[in-house]
Amino acid sequence: MDQRYAVGIDFGGTFTKMALVDDAGQILARREIPTGTLLDQSAWIDAMAEGIQSLTEPADDGQPIKIAGVGIGVPGFVDFERGHIFDLPNVPGWAGVPLALFMEQRLGLRVRVDNDVNVMALGEGTFGAGRTYQHAVFMTLGTGVGGALLIHNRIYRGAYHMAGEIGHMTVDLNGVESPTGFGGLEQYVGNRRIVERAIRYLEEGRASTLDERCAGDRSRIDPLMIEQAAVAGDALSIQVYDEVADYLAAGMASVTYLLQPQAFIIGGGVGQSATLYDLLQRHLKRRLSSYFYDRIEITKAALGNDAGVIGGATLVLIE
Amino acid sequence: MDQRYAVGIDFGGTFTKMALVDDAGQILARREIPTGTLLDQSAWIDAMAEGIQSLTEPADDGQPIKIAGVGIGVPGFVDFERGHIFDLPNVPGWAGVPLALFMEQRLGLRVRVDNDVNVMALGEGTFGAGRTYQHAVFMTLGTGVGGALLIHNRIYRGAYHMAGEIGHMTVDLNGVESPTGFGGLEQYVGNRRIVERAIRYLEEGRASTLDERCAGDRSRIDPLMIEQAAVAGDALSIQVYDEVADYLAAGMASVTYLLQPQAFIIGGGVGQSATLYDLLQRHLKRRLSSYFYDRIEITKAALGNDAGVIGGATLVLIE
Repeated sequence: MDQRYAVGIDFGGTFTKMALVDDAGQILARREIPTGTLLDQSAWIDAMAEGIQSLTEPADDGQPIKIAGVGIGVPGFVDFERGHIFDLPNVPGWAGVPLALFMEQRLGLRVRVDNDVNVMALGEGTFGAGRTYQHAVFMTLGTGVGGALLIHNRIYRGAYHMAGEIGHMTVDLNGVESPTGFGGLEQYVGNRRIVERAIRYLEEGRASTLDERCAGDRSRIDPLMIEQAAVAGDALSIQVYDEVADYLAAGMASVTYLLQPQAFIIGGGVGQSATLYDLLQRHLKRRLSSYFYDRIEITKAALGNDAGVIGGATLVLIE
Repeated sequence: MDQRYAVGIDFGGTFTKMALVDDAGQILARREIPTGTLLDQSAWIDAMAEGIQSLTEPADDGQPIKIAGVGIGVPGFVDFERGHIFDLPNVPGWAGVPLALFMEQRLGLRVRVDNDVNVMALGEGTFGAGRTYQHAVFMTLGTGVGGALLIHNRIYRGAYHMAGEIGHMTVDLNGVESPTGFGGLEQYVGNRRIVERAIRYLEEGRASTLDERCAGDRSRIDPLMIEQAAVAGDALSIQVYDEVADYLAAGMASVTYLLQPQAFIIGGGVGQSATLYDLLQRHLKRRLSSYFYDRIEITKAALGNDAGVIGGATLVLIE
């Protein structure tokens, strides 16, 4: 069989990334555009069309590369069957957009659109840390907590395309209120919550190397700085990660009792934390009966920031 | 096509029920044996063999009924592929039993064994309240809280046959400790917990018609009595059901965010409570964003106490 190619697009709040990807999941070329410079839908679509053309331009000695289509991950709710964006909560101006239709008309190519976490999960499941699992749950730990479900080797999107919202699952029924309910996991382990937790302890006057690390400017504290302090033995920072791990373990225990996947595959910034995994295992062991604890694996995502573009291409090449 | 028949067996802690069921889900004959009189595995298997023979005996004028096989629901962990019981936590002497193998050797018939909640869900999904759904979550509310998942029209058992344990999902991460973790849903809404909640309020000296209804013997209070008092307007009893509904809604919100099924189908004793459903809707609305709340249905199971035997037969006739 000839090698096949597709372009994957990762529509992020800050950057929109594009890559030419082959059917082995290898990236052959890439582009990156600050999303903020693309003022509206038509500017975004223009930029994507140009990007795709430049990615598939012939080398000096060759033919233009023929691609099977374009797969796009977007940060929000999507009707995957129709490639229709319901809403991107953090990107104004994108509610109710038939993006696949618009892009197909513009490009004359097959276009698929899905939620960004589903797309990353598809990339990881096909070419990354999920290759050997039939049943896995993907989590991204960053500003929010995203989730996607691999069931019988396919992304499961639920009855209306919105499944996988692990970040909104209740871990404390009378806890923090948000537009999605009370005591949702994301309210305790999102990046800002982690930083707020550390600053709260600093403000209580507790000793920590964090003040030194941030040179006295606490607005500079981020999860990575807390992680580095924790690795270096800072007690306050270790406590913060321990508490974050316990909240995560509570949510993961619920997921495990409900779905019993083979594994959790964890990506996103905080998901790279070395400190996190031992703590997660310890709390998960407290929170699961051995029937479930002994059968669940926790593993780091393998494709890093490329999961989105590789997964996007995979939408066209495989799904 | 000829009509086909199977025997379904519902292995309960109190009674073991058996029925001859046709491929339209109709019960043609039934037997019921107190489980406690069957002292060990071999007595249980003997009783089942006799029961099956009597269920399929020829009528005065006819042939014996040929059955496609026997399907059994048991209260515990089962390897469905092999029909092997790992453990029945509430029935001593049944850990590590290859029940399908034993029964097939004894009967010369095809035998399938599954967890009892999966079996009920299969019955409801095929012939009851779940007929029109492809994606639904079944819950049984009784001594404990059981769950089963219908995904793409099939029971989803997870990677190792144990999925669906909604009763162990965390609703309060620092809540009641149990062998399955902390703050599990079942710790707040199981039958005994409901009664304990009512008695606690009575002991605080609050007025209620419950003392009259139980004729001063509080050990006689059960969830049905509290339900009847609530329907009659007893404030304490309404409060108990309101709190139970809120705990349930917290668990159901988590399930909805994770899986986004079309519907919850609720069975079991407390699941028959008329009081419960309005309260559930009210709390679920507080706990879900409208994207999810507007798309979720809650419906009562339709097969009542027959779900187990009908589902058992369905295991053989359909699954």
